[in-house]
Amino acid sequence: MHAIRKLLHPRSIAVLGASDNPVKLSGRPVDYLKRFGFTGRILPINAHRAQVQGLPAHPDLDAVDGDIDVAMVMLSADQVADGLRACARRGVAVAIVGAAGFAESGERGAVLQRELEAIVAETGIRVLGPNCLGMLSVRDRAVPTFTSALDEDVDLREGPVAFVSQSGAFGSFIFSEAQRCGIGISHYLNTGNEADLSVAEILGGLVDDESTAVLMAYLEGVHRGRDLLRVARRAHELDKPILAVKVGRSAAGARAARSHTASLAGEDAVFDGAARQFGIVRLDGMEPLLDAAQVFATRRRARGRRLTTLSLSGGAGVLMADLAGGHGLRVPVWEQAWQRRMAEVIPDYGSPANPVDLTATLLSDPDMLRRALRVTVEHPDTDLIAVLLGNADKGAELIVDAIDQAHRATDRPLVVVWTGGSGRPRQRLRELGIPCFTDPGRAAAALGALADFSLRPPLPSPRRPDDVDDRVARAVVRTARERGRVQLDEHESSRLVAAYGVRCAGAFPATDGDSAVAAARDLGGPVAVKVLSDRIGHKSDIGGVRLGLTEPEEIRAAAEELRAVAARAGDPHARLLVQRMADGGTELLVGIKHDPAFGPVVVVGVGGVLVDVLADSRVAVAPLDVDGARRLLLSLRGSALFGPVRGEPARDLDAAADVVARLSWLAADLADDVAELDVNPLLLGAEGRGAVAVDCLAVLTGGEERG
Amino acid sequence: MHAIRKLLHPRSIAVLGASDNPVKLSGRPVDYLKRFGFTGRILPINAHRAQVQGLPAHPDLDAVDGDIDVAMVMLSADQVADGLRACARRGVAVAIVGAAGFAESGERGAVLQRELEAIVAETGIRVLGPNCLGMLSVRDRAVPTFTSALDEDVDLREGPVAFVSQSGAFGSFIFSEAQRCGIGISHYLNTGNEADLSVAEILGGLVDDESTAVLMAYLEGVHRGRDLLRVARRAHELDKPILAVKVGRSAAGARAARSHTASLAGEDAVFDGAARQFGIVRLDGMEPLLDAAQVFATRRRARGRRLTTLSLSGGAGVLMADLAGGHGLRVPVWEQAWQRRMAEVIPDYGSPANPVDLTATLLSDPDMLRRALRVTVEHPDTDLIAVLLGNADKGAELIVDAIDQAHRATDRPLVVVWTGGSGRPRQRLRELGIPCFTDPGRAAAALGALADFSLRPPLPSPRRPDDVDDRVARAVVRTARERGRVQLDEHESSRLVAAYGVRCAGAFPATDGDSAVAAARDLGGPVAVKVLSDRIGHKSDIGGVRLGLTEPEEIRAAAEELRAVAARAGDPHARLLVQRMADGGTELLVGIKHDPAFGPVVVVGVGGVLVDVLADSRVAVAPLDVDGARRLLLSLRGSALFGPVRGEPARDLDAAADVVARLSWLAADLADDVAELDVNPLLLGAEGRGAVAVDCLAVLTGGEERG
Repeated sequence: MHAIRKLLHPRSIAVLGASDNPVKLSGRPVDYLKRFGFTGRILPINAHRAQVQGLPAHPDLDAVDGDIDVAMVMLSADQVADGLRACARRGVAVAIVGAAGFAESGERGAVLQRELEAIVAETGIRVLGPNCLGMLSVRDRAVPTFTSALDEDVDLREGPVAFVSQSGAFGSFIFSEAQRCGIGISHYLNTGNEADLSVAEILGGLVDDESTAVLMAYLEGVHRGRDLLRVARRAHELDKPILAVKVGRSAAGARAARSHTASLAGEDAVFDGAARQFGIVRLDGMEPLLDAAQVFATRRRARGRRLTTLSLSGGAGVLMADLAGGHGLRVPVWEQAWQRRMAEVIPDYGSPANPVDLTATLLSDPDMLRRALRVTVEHPDTDLIAVLLGNADKGAELIVDAIDQAHRATDRPLVVVWTGGSGRPRQRLRELGIPCFTDPGRAAAALGALADFSLRPPLPSPRRPDDVDDRVARAVVRTARERGRVQLDEHESSRLVAAYGVRCAGAFPATDGDSAVAAARDLGGPVAVKVLSDRIGHKSDIGGVRLGLTEPEEIRAAAEELRAVAARAGDPHARLLVQRMADGGTELLVGIKHDPAFGPVVVVGVGGVLVDVLADSRVAVAPLDVDGARRLLLSLRGSALFGPVRGEPARDLDAAADVVARLSWLAADLADDVAELDVNPLLLGAEGRGAVAVDCLAVLTGGEERG
Repeated sequence: MHAIRKLLHPRSIAVLGASDNPVKLSGRPVDYLKRFGFTGRILPINAHRAQVQGLPAHPDLDAVDGDIDVAMVMLSADQVADGLRACARRGVAVAIVGAAGFAESGERGAVLQRELEAIVAETGIRVLGPNCLGMLSVRDRAVPTFTSALDEDVDLREGPVAFVSQSGAFGSFIFSEAQRCGIGISHYLNTGNEADLSVAEILGGLVDDESTAVLMAYLEGVHRGRDLLRVARRAHELDKPILAVKVGRSAAGARAARSHTASLAGEDAVFDGAARQFGIVRLDGMEPLLDAAQVFATRRRARGRRLTTLSLSGGAGVLMADLAGGHGLRVPVWEQAWQRRMAEVIPDYGSPANPVDLTATLLSDPDMLRRALRVTVEHPDTDLIAVLLGNADKGAELIVDAIDQAHRATDRPLVVVWTGGSGRPRQRLRELGIPCFTDPGRAAAALGALADFSLRPPLPSPRRPDDVDDRVARAVVRTARERGRVQLDEHESSRLVAAYGVRCAGAFPATDGDSAVAAARDLGGPVAVKVLSDRIGHKSDIGGVRLGLTEPEEIRAAAEELRAVAARAGDPHARLLVQRMADGGTELLVGIKHDPAFGPVVVVGVGGVLVDVLADSRVAVAPLDVDGARRLLLSLRGSALFGPVRGEPARDLDAAADVVARLSWLAADLADDVAELDVNPLLLGAEGRGAVAVDCLAVLTGGEERG
């Protein structure tokens, strides 16, 4: 972290390969550092010139006196390794490598990148990039970058929002757009190929940086998911939101599926689930990101979801009320007593309920807005405030003053929607630190995100159940390993699940008709008979299951048929599993799998026919606590199934959450051994009746199926 | 229409009560007409002045020579009636009434508005308003309005987009915002209280106006739905899109429900269904409306949904591909041969697949963009084109030129996303008629709306089934009417449904245990026995249904119990219905009801447990053709249920569509008599197996339940 702190607030910046021509890429960093007034030392390194852009140049790093915090390496890809070694020798804390031509461009580039990684490992120097545009720290005016965002004469607007982007060009567009929208920035960094410093590490530095209160991230792929979650945990504790755009939602759908549960959840779903779990605010694009940043930059929080809107136009108020609902906000009608108070200060033909309609009289009487805002600020059941205006450039100053006064008088989030007109009032409001939008819908979305974050659930603090039978769990895995198998059969899989305290439907293995009949007698009641084989994964697909058998002769006949079925499917030595028929219930899917970025995760979904109808699943990083598991289940689109639904009693959600939490511990404990495990279905009974795992199937790590 | 044509292109505008002070509301119309250069005659009417704002004034309308197309009535509410009568006497085609204080403000205002309506009915003068801000026709510079949108010095930007708003102030904000976004406007009209001219009538005039190619509407409530649909039909034929924002989505949820089907669909759902059916493009807010208008204003159409993106930044391309999928677009990888052609013109480290990554080299080599666009324009499998750029104010001119050239070379929709920077390139592109956005997501949404409209289904052209038994249908209604009943019992309701050619589960009424057993014997197989009463609506709620009975003794026992149940529920004379148990199938709900704005409509939904889980229903205006009914069913969120789903064969969608179409005819034919009818469930068998109405319940008009 020491190095990252130096990167975020450098006191000296060397530029290797600095050109005297400020228009060339390699000339830009020195030009920018000069132009924006870097408060530390600018150290151009150029073997061929005594001066670069009017500054004294050094022939090499060794010729520089004093510490060098950051070196901006503006050398071509094949010169970078030498440059980096020089930086490391000289004790540079962080080198920023701008050049492209590394892992992003073919085999030769990959070789160069591996060399760069080796230098990092060998010398301990930290590297941002390669293939990155650099960074800027606004407070220090430290701009070791060649981004086109600084190309034109722009004023850097300082503020509490830090931005990290994996994308270079698009990141710079977003940075530029943020500044144009009046969002004050503390830092902007582009991580490029991430040969060394990842987005997560940079965010980790920023989250503890006192100049930063809001973190924005633009992500193209998360490779070290657990690192990101550690930062998210820290950010959660410090009440600093991480606002993230991550591309790849659509790619998730295209991913070919192997195991059944895996087919419900691609990688993007894992990120999405982890983000929900750890309070990362995921946004769907650039504008939603910047809109949220504008609101979060005020550092205000919402105590609830109740929005009061005051508008110059009844129409705008209605639209806002409509849209707010879609973002989890409510626009409740005010209590009678408070409506009376509001009615005293607004025109007769206005509306004192919520949405409050101040009418166009506002334009000729800005003091009325002042009074209405005073009532609103005092109203105890208002959590968020939106003022909706439009056009009215004339007289805007008094209106802006009234809003500014109210904004100062409250610590509640207050935003303005000012539609149409010249745009000058919007600019003025933003200068005053008041979030301002053109479109009611965008304001509603940003306020919704703020409310979600303000009211976010506590961080997961899972406690391992103390009744796990580790001995059995290890024995199941060991036995399979000893036999060189990765696929467990249903009986073994159930034992593993049962070892974690999950109730499984009673079952005995059998080898033929007679032993199947005996097993059925021992179980009592109707039974299912299934093919039991570690070579046949989806036994229903081959007709390897017979349900609801009661008579010995039908059990015997089924046993014979199933052995024939199994033989045809490639396992002439398959055994049978005789299982007590579970009582009816709501079918859930619970699975665990291993995500390349986030490690062990648990997947829940609605089972039965609804799997295809709803395509409804959610993912969480393991382990989970029971509360987190409950939230996960309730976040399913089909969560109304937990009821009560039309004639059916409510389901035992507590039992389902308990199972999910236990399986998440199985995933976490056995991450090195269990690659995948599906419980399908988990039959969920009515409240108090518990849940039963009916069919379990586990795959160990090391097989070709490992995802 | 004659009057509306004069309103849209007036040659002379009188202003009643015109003030000499251009700052006062009553002075603004003359000020605006002068300032924006109205091409016709401006006729200030003022009894007290010879001149108004430098123009000769007339003491009254009779003192004016020649025709008066439009009179802007700037009188207070209680003077309006006299003013209107004077206008009517003088032969004014349309009067615009600006004053508030009518139906929107209490009983006294309502009286004034009824007087105004009486004058319209009596004299035939047409009225826009009252409580409206007026209108503007940009080509004619006709601006009889006092909207604050013209308050500042603005240039009116002419174009093919007409805008009608029910909201005054918010409509003017949107108009102003549209102009600021470079959207050229033909007309803007505010309809206010709609005492006479409705949004639908105004749109009807605009759709046939040659200066208009795109219609935008901001709606707060649609009262004459069928009028709107007539305009939508005309617009559909002329290929002029209607882009509509309608508030009230959230209000729908709050509406108390009476009949079961009605609880699924509030008024907003009716508008939503009608819009889908008639090709009205519904948008969710102001920005989506204006974004769509920008793209539609080019008058281009998409031949398919295949989007090719060319970007300066790989990141932007990935985000765009991600977001495009959410708006019904595809970003397919180009064929190898075309990738090779693209590869010839772009840098090695770019990507010639789609999204095409041109890399930042574009900035130094705009000619490369020109070449890449040439390949794209020639690529036959590209339906829409998006060019993604950012920052780069330097060199922007050459880039804009390259895009302009490509835009001229193709008739396919082409948009630019230019993120960040000064905004000047965006402005320039819009001046060239090229839609330009800051945010990829908004561009994707607008292109998606364009593709949806371009590929819209044909208009409904329903043909009445020729096997309807009108005699039976009329007899059922007549019998109930004669007995003074509005609630039909299940048996009567089924006869009505059957008369329209819908198969109903076989059933006989019975009076006691013996006749129930006899009925069951005649039907054969297991039966359901139900309470049959015109006084008990939801018989399941009182336990009035017994299912799957086979033995005479159970049928007899059930019959006795049910009669007791019915007696307790208030109908001691209730009969019984013995019904053949239908085979299993997917449960649908099909209902008809009467919407106050759109008249008879049909509602479809997913039945069974899923009703609560999915809360999934769709509405269409009756009558429907079978293709329209199929689209309606497939638009359900749970449409995957039509399968095939996991182990279940595909359902007989054709049969379901046939039933929906037939019931829609019932709704249309019997609109005056049948207020509501629910078929719940309609059991849908496997393909080729048809559909059976299991439970039907109809309510006639005239009851208190009439919605």
